[in-house]
Amino acid sequence: MNIKIAGTGCYIPPEIELNADFGQHEFLDADGIQLDHPNQVIIDKFREITGIRERRYAKENQNTSDLAFFAAEKAIQDAKTDPETLDYIIVAHNFGDVKYGTIQADTVPCLAARVKHFLRIQNPKCVAYDLLFGCPGWIEGIVQAQAYIKCKMAKKCLVIGAETLSRVIDKHDRDSMIFSDGAGAAVIEATENDEGILACESATYTRDEINYLYYGNSHNKNLCKNTRYIKMNGRKIYEFACTYVPEAMKKCLDKSGVPIGDVKKIFMHQANEKMDEAIVKRFFRLYKKEVPEGIMPMNIQKMGNSSVATIPTLLDMVKKGEIENQSVNKGDVVIFASVGAGMNINAVVYKC
Amino acid sequence: MNIKIAGTGCYIPPEIELNADFGQHEFLDADGIQLDHPNQVIIDKFREITGIRERRYAKENQNTSDLAFFAAEKAIQDAKTDPETLDYIIVAHNFGDVKYGTIQADTVPCLAARVKHFLRIQNPKCVAYDLLFGCPGWIEGIVQAQAYIKCKMAKKCLVIGAETLSRVIDKHDRDSMIFSDGAGAAVIEATENDEGILACESATYTRDEINYLYYGNSHNKNLCKNTRYIKMNGRKIYEFACTYVPEAMKKCLDKSGVPIGDVKKIFMHQANEKMDEAIVKRFFRLYKKEVPEGIMPMNIQKMGNSSVATIPTLLDMVKKGEIENQSVNKGDVVIFASVGAGMNINAVVYKC
Repeated sequence: MNIKIAGTGCYIPPEIELNADFGQHEFLDADGIQLDHPNQVIIDKFREITGIRERRYAKENQNTSDLAFFAAEKAIQDAKTDPETLDYIIVAHNFGDVKYGTIQADTVPCLAARVKHFLRIQNPKCVAYDLLFGCPGWIEGIVQAQAYIKCKMAKKCLVIGAETLSRVIDKHDRDSMIFSDGAGAAVIEATENDEGILACESATYTRDEINYLYYGNSHNKNLCKNTRYIKMNGRKIYEFACTYVPEAMKKCLDKSGVPIGDVKKIFMHQANEKMDEAIVKRFFRLYKKEVPEGIMPMNIQKMGNSSVATIPTLLDMVKKGEIENQSVNKGDVVIFASVGAGMNINAVVYKC
Repeated sequence: MNIKIAGTGCYIPPEIELNADFGQHEFLDADGIQLDHPNQVIIDKFREITGIRERRYAKENQNTSDLAFFAAEKAIQDAKTDPETLDYIIVAHNFGDVKYGTIQADTVPCLAARVKHFLRIQNPKCVAYDLLFGCPGWIEGIVQAQAYIKCKMAKKCLVIGAETLSRVIDKHDRDSMIFSDGAGAAVIEATENDEGILACESATYTRDEINYLYYGNSHNKNLCKNTRYIKMNGRKIYEFACTYVPEAMKKCLDKSGVPIGDVKKIFMHQANEKMDEAIVKRFFRLYKKEVPEGIMPMNIQKMGNSSVATIPTLLDMVKKGEIENQSVNKGDVVIFASVGAGMNINAVVYKC
């Protein structure tokens, strides 16, 4: 028995926030001192490194669980699945529902229960829970769904990644330009065909890495000390990711038995264009290979980094021909890989 | 292969909050109107229904992840396990780390990553994630750990339930007297012996039940509308739990093949003494039996309702002889059962 993705869907929030929209922000360093350069220089450098030109924000009346629901509906439709046949709804996120203009996360009931409610599923045997695992949460949901299907606890699972990072950013921190909102989803089910998940690899590094991504105070020291925002140590994350993500991808690919030359696409967590390129370069270097052209589809330029939502959104867009010069075909072997708060890393080798 | 609990531990926070400590609270109804009766009458009635005489609160400098860590250390010690051999750390909670005197939940990095950090575990293959599933989260963690062990993704898992509900209560709501803080943990592993998990049952009801437990405003209408607190519709929960929990327990027991007469103990989520008694009564009624005396150990009188922490705390206390006239012996069949926000329900039939 193999486990495959039977359908995908994503929700791309309608509000476009351009880099230019950050032009008037007062960017400070961690000590609260205004950055040396004019905003235009900061923004240009930001774009050069991350590739991000614009990002999406949820509408003021939308919450993370709404985005999750919209993506779920599309994945269910794409999979031609009766929602009443779902055994699990797994929602990966990190900050819960944070209403616009407020600072409290709302996770009771959990977001998966809300999605189930919105989907009007009546079957009580459809178990709905939330999974917190940093940005790699959606892939980890796939790994968990696979376990339930393998040991016959489930036949069909809906795995969603959804986030509204626009609600937890510090506008005085230039890193705020990275983060965005979005949701992606997939229906996972068993198949007897030669397709689906070939191997998985997950890892958690918490010794020195525990606070590379954290919830901290604003760079503006005049703001309330009790209000916290998503914060990252970008340099540390870059070094960490470039070392450990290629290693996890290699372990996973070697487990699958697929030769490197057969890998057709790599769906990387859309964290930062330069970092993603460096990871893929190092991954191929482990096999003494050059990076094949076009192997890594990207949408970070227009979508920003929506945490758990990036990979399912990107996959859905590529499947539907919405990324220029990118497609996946039946039989293609692809790799999903992610890294994020924890620090957590995971990878899945998948045959389409 | 069976899956057993190799060791348990709990952390009981040191601060004792007596019912008398609520004597001066201004209790209001949902419309903000002061309750008719004097506080002493309200408190006496509360005690009569819930059984709660006192509850535990974390110290001001402790967070949920600290409590989780303390319980984890004890479970690891009890199981005589090398923490480096753990394949998973699963932390069930609902509100994250909420620092004393603040209202924001902190879940980045996730609490399981923090616990792994506190335990100084270096092995990156020990995967740490958080699970949100209402009060039944700890049992659901056991169900998930079982899946990983069964399909050979893991050999040993640490499952923790931890919560600091004292940080999210509305002091103007008499229901605030129910909630408490605590943490319980268990190490789960495979065994070739005739013991361990015999059957599991999980269910999620979200159609009419989605907001039976929710995050809502204070009963005091003068307080900030953007600050929310744990809220419950007690009457609805009572009716719901008395119908569906006995049903889930029966399905689970019937799946296990164990006759009702062989059930030695029932470890119920410590939600409310009267409700728990009613659930167990109805469960036995489904088999046309009377409730055997002493079958349901309870600690709610002194511990209150600490959500995900109640069952592992109670189990640990009974195992260690800390509940009067209660014990479990090798070979005893016991049932764990819980109900909470979602609404979620689960049950496990377990042979000691």
